This record gives sequence, structure tokens and C-alpha cells, in this order.
Amino acid sequence: MTVKKKRTAFFISDGTGITAGSLGGLLSHFPETEFEQIRIPFTDSAVKIDDAQKRIVNAKLKDGVKPIVIMTIGDPSLSSDLKQVDAYYIDLFDVFIHPLAKELGEEALTRPGVSHSIQGANYGSRMEAINFALGHDDGMTHTGLNQAQVILVGVSRSGKTPTSIYLAMQFGIKTANYPLIPEDFERGTLPPILDGYLDKIFGLTIKSERLHSLRSERRPDSHYASLANCREEILKAETLMKRIGIPMADSTSRSVEELSTIIIQHMKN
Amino acid sequence: MTVKKKRTAFFISDGTGITAGSLGGLLSHFPETEFEQIRIPFTDSAVKIDDAQKRIVNAKLKDGVKPIVIMTIGDPSLSSDLKQVDAYYIDLFDVFIHPLAKELGEEALTRPGVSHSIQGANYGSRMEAINFALGHDDGMTHTGLNQAQVILVGVSRSGKTPTSIYLAMQFGIKTANYPLIPEDFERGTLPPILDGYLDKIFGLTIKSERLHSLRSERRPDSHYASLANCREEILKAETLMKRIGIPMADSTSRSVEELSTIIIQHMKN
Repeated sequence: MTVKKKRTAFFISDGTGITAGSLGGLLSHFPETEFEQIRIPFTDSAVKIDDAQKRIVNAKLKDGVKPIVIMTIGDPSLSSDLKQVDAYYIDLFDVFIHPLAKELGEEALTRPGVSHSIQGANYGSRMEAINFALGHDDGMTHTGLNQAQVILVGVSRSGKTPTSIYLAMQFGIKTANYPLIPEDFERGTLPPILDGYLDKIFGLTIKSERLHSLRSERRPDSHYASLANCREEILKAETLMKRIGIPMADSTSRSVEELSTIIIQHMKN
Repeated sequence: MTVKKKRTAFFISDGTGITAGSLGGLLSHFPETEFEQIRIPFTDSAVKIDDAQKRIVNAKLKDGVKPIVIMTIGDPSLSSDLKQVDAYYIDLFDVFIHPLAKELGEEALTRPGVSHSIQGANYGSRMEAINFALGHDDGMTHTGLNQAQVILVGVSRSGKTPTSIYLAMQFGIKTANYPLIPEDFERGTLPPILDGYLDKIFGLTIKSERLHSLRSERRPDSHYASLANCREEILKAETLMKRIGIPMADSTSRSVEELSTIIIQHMKN
């Protein structure tokens, strides 16, 4: 086993730094390097630039190698001040915003915090969708289901709740979720309340070993968590969903980001 | 009022497209242009490239101007195939990953879906934090509070729930939230269950007009939603928090991204 090289990656912004920080995902393209990711938000004054510089200098001393700095600072003077200390800079104004301004023939706004303000695209609908998802988690209410844009079904602990929350938080999609339980399998149909919503329903399934492990965390040594019961519930749930023609995705090795993307893509078709 | 120019912005990826799509936030630097943002995920085959090209061509016909294409496609041959149609391309491999590979002295992984896999940094802890936040919403349980990293307090509808969920989903921070209610104001102290957790507590406050409007959506024409009652509750909550020395942020004109960033920054100090 080789020891990973260490690097500090800073995400420095005059706003939240969340846009810059989201590029941190791209650092996983470099598995030989172990990145310490540090977000420095609200860097919008000379004092704060000074503080950020000190942290860059210290990181270089600690790692013995130049830190990576991914930055979005709209004020050109603060931005160039920051770059006085030695680091590898990727300035999203240079690689993204200024070139785009040229292409669009429009001057870019440079005031701080433009990206994640409350006025941003569909902020209100995202908040509304979160309230909806929380209010319609785990089949807790039947009212308002007609407003749902997506209804997730699956056995207990198949990933319905975090996926619902992600769809709502990230995309503003009103998502309800319903557990499939032994009564449904006996009856051989979906919960009757879901009649008429077939086009919004998406199923999550999971491998039995993984479900056994997840359920054991919650209720160790129970019938509920036993591998035999997990196997049986999953088999029955998959059989039911296939028979009715519900699209399905396996959550075993997929993140909520991947599951949500699959669900959105399916719902569009 | 000027009519906004229309442009289509595509986010095309061989993975979820969520990293590329997060740069969509930067488009708000161009308020004179109205962007239709379209994410095309899982673009990892010749057939899918072909389909994406058709959508680019159609968007150009519709808008009468080149679409913007922000892309992360690891396979160099698919990537260059895509670029055969006329558009303004920002390739995150060109502006970000390849230059970084040079700086790091490490070849970049190019297989699809590297960024948002379940193996990604702290995925497990993010899922755990979501379960924690849901289980500790609105003071619903007192157990496990010692595991909380942040405890939000504030009057009903001051933004505690969505902020808790965002802190958990985005950053893997275990966040509980407790409402401040008239009984607390009468007693003049925080809920006694929170004794001993002062260093984790952060207060949310809100302008009375905004609170009145939010509460009116939920219970119109109630005492709860009346402007007079909102004013009184907010005044009492702020007085209580100030007296105890709880840090506070006003949620009236701040997004959950901004509130979460402020809270994280404060908790570090």
C-alpha cells in the first residue's frame, strides 16, 4: 500500500463558497492524493484576505507543497491581493465567469454572494418541497398526495427517506414515500391509497445482505433484521413491483445523488 | 423593463452531472440573460452523445444563439465527439482536471461517475446525519442530544428545520432543533433539557412581517400567525437568547446555504 500524498485544497469565496466547494467533488479524480478540503466563506474585505493568506501559507508549510486554491471573489482588487501568496490558483472568474461574459456580451455581476441568495432560482419551491417531503415521509399522511411529483416505494430501510429529502432539497421536487410492508405482500397490491398515482411511483430495492446490515443497526437480532426476512421481503417487494410495472433502482451501491438522477431521468420519459 | 435574452445552458456529464450543474449557480452573475438549464446525466456512450448533440442543435435553433455547454466527460473520444456541434463549451477537464493533474503530478481518473459515488468522502456520515436531523426535528426527542454537533433554537417557522436538514445533507453535521415556545419565555430560560449544551446552540431569528406571512400560510387568521403575536414572540425569543449569550442569525433574507455557512463558521470559532 502506498502512502497518499497530502495536499490542502482551499475553497475561498466572498459568498458561501458552496459553488467553489462543489468542485471539490472533482478532486476524487485524484485518488493518489489525500486532500484536506477547507472552505473559507465571506472573504470580502482586506482583513479577511489577509487571514486567508495566512492559512494558505501555513498549509504550505505543513504539507511541504503548494496548496490548491479554488476561488470566486468578485472584487478584482481583493482577488489579485489574495493571489500574492504562493499557491496553485484556479479562479472561477478567470476560467468560467469572464470568458462567459464575453460570449454572452454581458458584464458579470461582481458583488459577493450572488450564487446562493434567497432570490436564487426556485429557492421558494425547494423550501416548499422540503416541507412536503418531511410531511409525507414513510406514508405518514395520505392528504396532499395529489401534489406529489414523485412517490417512492420500497421496503423499510431501502433508502426512501434520504432520497426523498435530496430530491426536494436539491431539485425542489415534491416527493412522498411509502413503505411496502408484509400486509401489502399478502394482499398482492400496492397500498390502496396509491391507486391512481402509478405514473409518479418509483421503487427502490436493495441487496439483502446490505438491508440486513442496515436493519441490524436499528434493531439488532430481530426477526425484522434477520437475513432470511430481508431476503423474503425484498423478493416479495420486487415481484410485486415488477408485476405492476413500477420502475426500480437498486440503492445498494448508489448515492442519493445517483438515485435522484436516475429517478428524474425516468420521470421525464 | 428590458426583455431578457434567452440562452440554453446544458450540463452534460458521464456521471450525475451534479458537479457540472452546481456551476449553474454562477450563471446568476448574468442577470440580463434568462437561462434554461438542462442537465444531461450518464452521457457515456456514442448513442447518448448523439442524443445530447441533437438537443444542443435544437436549442440553438430555438434560441437563435449558441447554447452554453458545461461538461465533464472523462472519455477523450466521446468528449471530442460531443464538441463537433456548434456551442460554447466549458469543459471541466480542460479548465480544471487536466491542469490540476499537471500540478499534482498525478494522472486523473477518467471513468464515469467518480464524483458522486457512494464511496465518496463522508457519504456514510452524511446519511447518518440526515437520520439524526429527522429524528431530532422540532424537539421531538430528548435522547441522543449529546451526539448533536449543532442545536438550533428559535420560534416556530424561523427556518430551523430546512437549515438542520441542509447542514446534515450537505456537510454531514448532526443537527437537532428545538422550538422556543411561550412557556420558555414565561420561565425565562431555554428548555431545561438543553442545559449543558450551550456551546452547541445557535439561534435563528426572523423579521415579524416575514414570520406573520409564513405562519399565515399554515394557520391563516390565527392568534399564532397574527402580526402582534409574531412581534411579541420574536422580541421575547431574541431577549432570551441575548441574555444567555446565544449567537443568532436572521433568516429573513438568507438562504439555507447562507445560514448553514454562518453557523459552521461560528461553531469553528
